[in-house]
Amino acid sequence: MDGRNIVACSYIETDGKSLNAVNPATGLTLEGAFFKANENLVDDALKAAAKAFYECRNLNKDLKAAFLNAIADEITDIGEALVNRASAESGLPLGRLQGELGRTTSQLRLFANLVAEGSWVDAIIDTALPDRQPLPKPDIRRMLVPIGPVVVFGASNFPLAFSVAGGDTASALAAGCPVIVKAHPAHYGTSALVAAAIIKAAEKTAMPKGVFSMLYDDGYTVGAALVQHPLTKAVAFTGSFKGGMALIRLAQQRKQPIPVFAEMGSINPVVFLPEALENRTEELAKKYAASITLGAGQFCTNPGLLLAIKSPALENFKKHLKDAIEIVPSATMLTSGIADHYAELSAEIINEGGVEVIVVSNLVNKELKNQSQAKIAQVSVNDFIENPKLREEIFGPYSLLVVADDMEELEKAVEVLDGQLTVSLMAEKQELRNYQNLIDKLSDKTGRIILNGASTGVEVCAAMQHGGPFPASSDSRFTSVGSTAVNRFVRPLAYQDWDQGLLPDELKDGNPLNIYRTLNQKITKSHE
Amino acid sequence: MDGRNIVACSYIETDGKSLNAVNPATGLTLEGAFFKANENLVDDALKAAAKAFYECRNLNKDLKAAFLNAIADEITDIGEALVNRASAESGLPLGRLQGELGRTTSQLRLFANLVAEGSWVDAIIDTALPDRQPLPKPDIRRMLVPIGPVVVFGASNFPLAFSVAGGDTASALAAGCPVIVKAHPAHYGTSALVAAAIIKAAEKTAMPKGVFSMLYDDGYTVGAALVQHPLTKAVAFTGSFKGGMALIRLAQQRKQPIPVFAEMGSINPVVFLPEALENRTEELAKKYAASITLGAGQFCTNPGLLLAIKSPALENFKKHLKDAIEIVPSATMLTSGIADHYAELSAEIINEGGVEVIVVSNLVNKELKNQSQAKIAQVSVNDFIENPKLREEIFGPYSLLVVADDMEELEKAVEVLDGQLTVSLMAEKQELRNYQNLIDKLSDKTGRIILNGASTGVEVCAAMQHGGPFPASSDSRFTSVGSTAVNRFVRPLAYQDWDQGLLPDELKDGNPLNIYRTLNQKITKSHE
Repeated sequence: MDGRNIVACSYIETDGKSLNAVNPATGLTLEGAFFKANENLVDDALKAAAKAFYECRNLNKDLKAAFLNAIADEITDIGEALVNRASAESGLPLGRLQGELGRTTSQLRLFANLVAEGSWVDAIIDTALPDRQPLPKPDIRRMLVPIGPVVVFGASNFPLAFSVAGGDTASALAAGCPVIVKAHPAHYGTSALVAAAIIKAAEKTAMPKGVFSMLYDDGYTVGAALVQHPLTKAVAFTGSFKGGMALIRLAQQRKQPIPVFAEMGSINPVVFLPEALENRTEELAKKYAASITLGAGQFCTNPGLLLAIKSPALENFKKHLKDAIEIVPSATMLTSGIADHYAELSAEIINEGGVEVIVVSNLVNKELKNQSQAKIAQVSVNDFIENPKLREEIFGPYSLLVVADDMEELEKAVEVLDGQLTVSLMAEKQELRNYQNLIDKLSDKTGRIILNGASTGVEVCAAMQHGGPFPASSDSRFTSVGSTAVNRFVRPLAYQDWDQGLLPDELKDGNPLNIYRTLNQKITKSHE
Repeated sequence: MDGRNIVACSYIETDGKSLNAVNPATGLTLEGAFFKANENLVDDALKAAAKAFYECRNLNKDLKAAFLNAIADEITDIGEALVNRASAESGLPLGRLQGELGRTTSQLRLFANLVAEGSWVDAIIDTALPDRQPLPKPDIRRMLVPIGPVVVFGASNFPLAFSVAGGDTASALAAGCPVIVKAHPAHYGTSALVAAAIIKAAEKTAMPKGVFSMLYDDGYTVGAALVQHPLTKAVAFTGSFKGGMALIRLAQQRKQPIPVFAEMGSINPVVFLPEALENRTEELAKKYAASITLGAGQFCTNPGLLLAIKSPALENFKKHLKDAIEIVPSATMLTSGIADHYAELSAEIINEGGVEVIVVSNLVNKELKNQSQAKIAQVSVNDFIENPKLREEIFGPYSLLVVADDMEELEKAVEVLDGQLTVSLMAEKQELRNYQNLIDKLSDKTGRIILNGASTGVEVCAAMQHGGPFPASSDSRFTSVGSTAVNRFVRPLAYQDWDQGLLPDELKDGNPLNIYRTLNQKITKSHE
């Protein structure tokens, strides 16, 4: 495993401090040495990316698709080693990481298909009307073009699907943007393996070398320098509110401010409507015990807030939830920092006014380090409304049940919620129609609203929206999962009265790429 | 003319200072008293807007279209009075304002048609695969939904097309967002007349009253309070860099930051390629003399920068340009502030290193106030590159000719340009193919690239892109002109496994609205 920094698909010797990867379950150092990057490497990487950009933006779409598919192939080839290393570095089970590997490669192929099909550029053509009165109408043709070099921050909780070749990188490359990855310190080795796969894929498909770079750092200097570099045109980040806001502030203070797409977490409220709670008490309790503790609760879509109305069924639900949570074994958290933070916050929260603990799981594996204990607490609507701290994310297997006297009170709790990635409703279909007000209020707070499902499964498809009102995301108009994630890294460019021969193929008369286009206000594949 | 502030379509008495409109050509006060609003009115307007939002977002699309068409009808009805008042307040000629009136109403009708047709919501449906292994695939359906109350700042240079019922308001209403307008102090009366038309249209189509408010202020308090109000969800602004950045900073400092779409001006470079300059010397000189001085140069797309290579043809071009500019009569500028600022900046610029004046028009109408004098200066590429001040917009009939020794030097001048709304190339088709590098560099700096046309005509159509890399716009991913301007005020919302009966019609099985949708990755109007 080569742990040197990568600039323009080449490994670079540096005199930077040597960094090691740690197994969070054992605390032991893992094989491999990685090297802290510096501002010179940042500058080299961005200059190479800016140079490559002029080639990338004019790349044939099939070649761009081939590159994305080649990355998927190379990653598949090293699958077993990769999953083993990712598990050792993250504490996540092998099964989970095998699934994540599949998601990562199919995500790359999804973007390859999108690019190869070609209609995603949203070509809009309004042809000239030279005889229009009082003024002739010019010919205007517009399509989406890449924005420039994109900096991607790897996320700790998805060492494959949201890291070096994850959704952010795949969508930026699909857009035609070179990518510079800041490797996440929680999985240096996984990052190195995936980066090597990307380099191979770039070589096989003869990409310009500046299309990919990756730098290591255990601190904040390299990340800050990447965001501040004048050649950087956009940033993608998944992580904490604090981390995301720090990057956003840096990007805003630039001479040329740039968009930071930050996905900063969410408490993903779940509302239990009375009939559903009555009819499916035990089923729902078990379902949520599983959802809250899945992956040690380390999902951005983890259900951190349960809302329900007082009833005997709710008491029964709590009992079943308690029984189910009690027997959830502890799990290794991603890093000692995350484990310590979870332990601290989940301990502190019970000192907040009116908060009572319902259950804490107590099957702690003493052989392993950084173990999480699932915890459920409860609070009244009044106490919940008065205390903003109760609405903040606690990253881990924790959830807070907010108990309302009636629906009116429950709606008040909904009104004080911040923006969310997801909101879920557990409801019988016939009762749903009585709650249009509640549904409107919930819709207004979220990017995705789910009926009787679990928020923790994030399907990678065209219709997915993974991004909600602030602070769930920095800009609710975009998603970080699904094929429309590509829209973060493109901007429209209009050509007026342009020469047919010099127009991009997407905009030429006769539609040589056979894509869907909006031609004089009609969506068509017409070749006229 | 009723000059009281408007909250939720109702006129409100206030004890605010009385404000007057001034004719910039005469300096005389015009008929009508307007009243400075205050923070209480801001709060009332936003609360009403937030309440109306819950109705607006679920409005039938035909009703929303009817509202937009009704605004166009009401404005058409008061056309003559409106154009007269706008001319008196802005100093712009009647003919220009008649054209702008037509643009304003056709813009409203364009958005009405967009809404009535319905496909703009970008419905994407991925149906369930309950038997998929290892996990079933849920049903996910996504569409664009309105973002919430939008604050629109009227622009001085388009008192109709970019003010109270201009492109920003039309696109926000089309999205389903209530609008609160901050009336521009340069045309209080025009604003009041248009606002009255909107109120009538809202009454005729039974809109929720909170859908529209309008407040007056001659300072910054009301505007700042509007941007800072927690219920405001987005801001649209067209104006100066300084003004736009002030609003952006306020929006960034909010607890919940919101998007500000600011269109902050541009110097709209024009590159003259050698053959075109040789073949069409006089024609191009006359064309640009007209374009630079059109509307006293008060367009965001005014060509403020001309780039060409030294040649006898260029000397000839300069001579024709000089002859044409010399006989351009002075024109009344929009406000005394703008006139003073133009006089100051266009005087200062000739003291910058290497800048020489080519021509100043000297037909000044001494009977009228706030008269602009067209001015053309020139500078070498070296001096241009060294001095960032030469790349700043001077709002008015001014343009700077940058003279390069050769194409290589010209490209260096292009490299230092900031983001632009438009870039134009004057070229013979056969010579264009030799300049792919130049075209790539120019494309990277702009939202619209024009061949042999004038940037000052901004066609309102689906393919238009009016928004470029910073500082031309705050976010190059959006446009403020054309039907896709609606995208600034919407965000995607995904429904997972949602009840058919409760889904919006846009997402229901059977496609009851008969719109284009992306159904399982195919664009279709299918009713299956």
